[in-house]
Amino acid sequence: MLVDALRRLLGEAERDRILLGIGDDAAVWQPSRSHRSVITTDSLVENVHFRRETMSLQDAGWRIMAANLSDIAAMGARPVLCTVAVGVPNEHAADELLELYRGIDQAAKTYSCPVAGGDLSKASELFVSVTMIGEVRPSNLKTRAGARPGDVVAVTGMLGASRAGFDVLENRGALSENAMQEATRAHRRPRPRLAEGRWLGASRQVHAMMDVSDGLGTDLQRMCAGSRCGATLDGIPVAPAVVAMASALNQDPQTYALGGGEDFELLVAVYPRAFKHLSKRFRARFGGELYRIGLFEAGSAVRRRAQDGTMTLLAPGWDHFA
Amino acid sequence: MLVDALRRLLGEAERDRILLGIGDDAAVWQPSRSHRSVITTDSLVENVHFRRETMSLQDAGWRIMAANLSDIAAMGARPVLCTVAVGVPNEHAADELLELYRGIDQAAKTYSCPVAGGDLSKASELFVSVTMIGEVRPSNLKTRAGARPGDVVAVTGMLGASRAGFDVLENRGALSENAMQEATRAHRRPRPRLAEGRWLGASRQVHAMMDVSDGLGTDLQRMCAGSRCGATLDGIPVAPAVVAMASALNQDPQTYALGGGEDFELLVAVYPRAFKHLSKRFRARFGGELYRIGLFEAGSAVRRRAQDGTMTLLAPGWDHFA
Repeated sequence: MLVDALRRLLGEAERDRILLGIGDDAAVWQPSRSHRSVITTDSLVENVHFRRETMSLQDAGWRIMAANLSDIAAMGARPVLCTVAVGVPNEHAADELLELYRGIDQAAKTYSCPVAGGDLSKASELFVSVTMIGEVRPSNLKTRAGARPGDVVAVTGMLGASRAGFDVLENRGALSENAMQEATRAHRRPRPRLAEGRWLGASRQVHAMMDVSDGLGTDLQRMCAGSRCGATLDGIPVAPAVVAMASALNQDPQTYALGGGEDFELLVAVYPRAFKHLSKRFRARFGGELYRIGLFEAGSAVRRRAQDGTMTLLAPGWDHFA
Repeated sequence: MLVDALRRLLGEAERDRILLGIGDDAAVWQPSRSHRSVITTDSLVENVHFRRETMSLQDAGWRIMAANLSDIAAMGARPVLCTVAVGVPNEHAADELLELYRGIDQAAKTYSCPVAGGDLSKASELFVSVTMIGEVRPSNLKTRAGARPGDVVAVTGMLGASRAGFDVLENRGALSENAMQEATRAHRRPRPRLAEGRWLGASRQVHAMMDVSDGLGTDLQRMCAGSRCGATLDGIPVAPAVVAMASALNQDPQTYALGGGEDFELLVAVYPRAFKHLSKRFRARFGGELYRIGLFEAGSAVRRRAQDGTMTLLAPGWDHFA
């Protein structure tokens, strides 16, 4: 894998200051003894990650911020600031660029993460790279490592809506007006779980945390690999729009949602005896549900149990793709 | 100006934590009372900032790191870590990508600035955005503001060699073998002045500092605008290769060097009575010269005095392009 080759080339980061390097949602370092800073970076490229036919530049700006904010949330951190590097085909297309920045600014203000600097280049296609800094108390920092066999697999919300929105916008399937609005909103204006991330980060009952950005199937495998354990999924919460779109596409809604990325919900490993109490407090605090979707197990297999009890292997085990 | 429109849109950054926002070499924030962190970002786009015909991907990797390291140096800071976001036309061109990272890694190791994270995207042309974090003691932080009328304008080295290297590589003029090597090396492997920046940052006699990345003519105007003063340049040090290239192109070497960017020397404003002593200590410490090239003045004009005494206006005054 290329990422592994790069990691070998770049070597182990200075262990005394960089506490967590390439491979988690964000890298962590220690500016002073009482603080941990986290940093993450993510890019959006036109015609690769979005098309103007289906997404405005303002939505694109919001989305790239949401992706970075979600990585900060996944560490249990709060955002501090970000930088924005943009490449634009035509430097005189100021209106378009302002559209992009408007979306960035909306997210920056909504989540208190000011844009502190940037870089503007000419490029043959539009790209935007955001790098974001967050801060977290050392005791609240959560990573992908730490899930233990027996822990509850939980997510902070329903999955698959962003994928359904993408499929609607790409005309792959039709939805009712309400379902369409729900799905396209999830796709264009995802809400990173910042408050939830800080709250879960502060709980000692939460053993591991990451965000679901590439689809639960893939991301759960990553958490299992990071924690050196396996897991079995029992059933995942899906939005009504997802059920409708999956049925329009003749797919199983759960399978559809498992493969859908960019919902930006948080995936957590919770100490089993504490789950009931934690989810009750979560509901009281945030209104939404902390969904129990499975259990971490010994071994390395990541599996899914269907409603009829049959088991599917999602991944043969992290050893094989470590 | 677009940058101003963006600044207005993004508003004033939270004043309590972000101490210096868009517009200096790097943004500054305060992770804790005893520390200042600085952040900067810079991108390199193929066929905009470099062409493979004249620059290897390894050199391109070094250069984008050098540009960011130079911004850190300009604040008087030391680098802590960086993130690298890359867009590549063909994700399977792993060899090419490793070439780029090899150059990044060489700079990362040379200047102790490990790559802590990154992002890899598909893109129709190669781009790389580096974001770098540095740290500095609050008392050592230097910015573009702070130059006072009467201060000496000084630079940490000779200028124009990178431009001469670019012109050689683009076949715009021929040089002797030695001059060519000197110039192409300056263009492909610029050396950011990190040790010098920290040392100058620690001096109370240095009132303002920035790096010369867009050409001394432009950058001195920026320092004057930031410091609300004017300046007169008397003569700038140019490398032998610059004299040769300028003469091959029928240009005045000083004018040629003034317009040449990316030498990554540091431009400083020094308390006049301290300059002689400071430059002596600089020479003893670094071997090279801290060149006195002019004086800051009251007013807003940025001018140049030729050897025959005639004055040229480099900029009518920062009020007009503020």
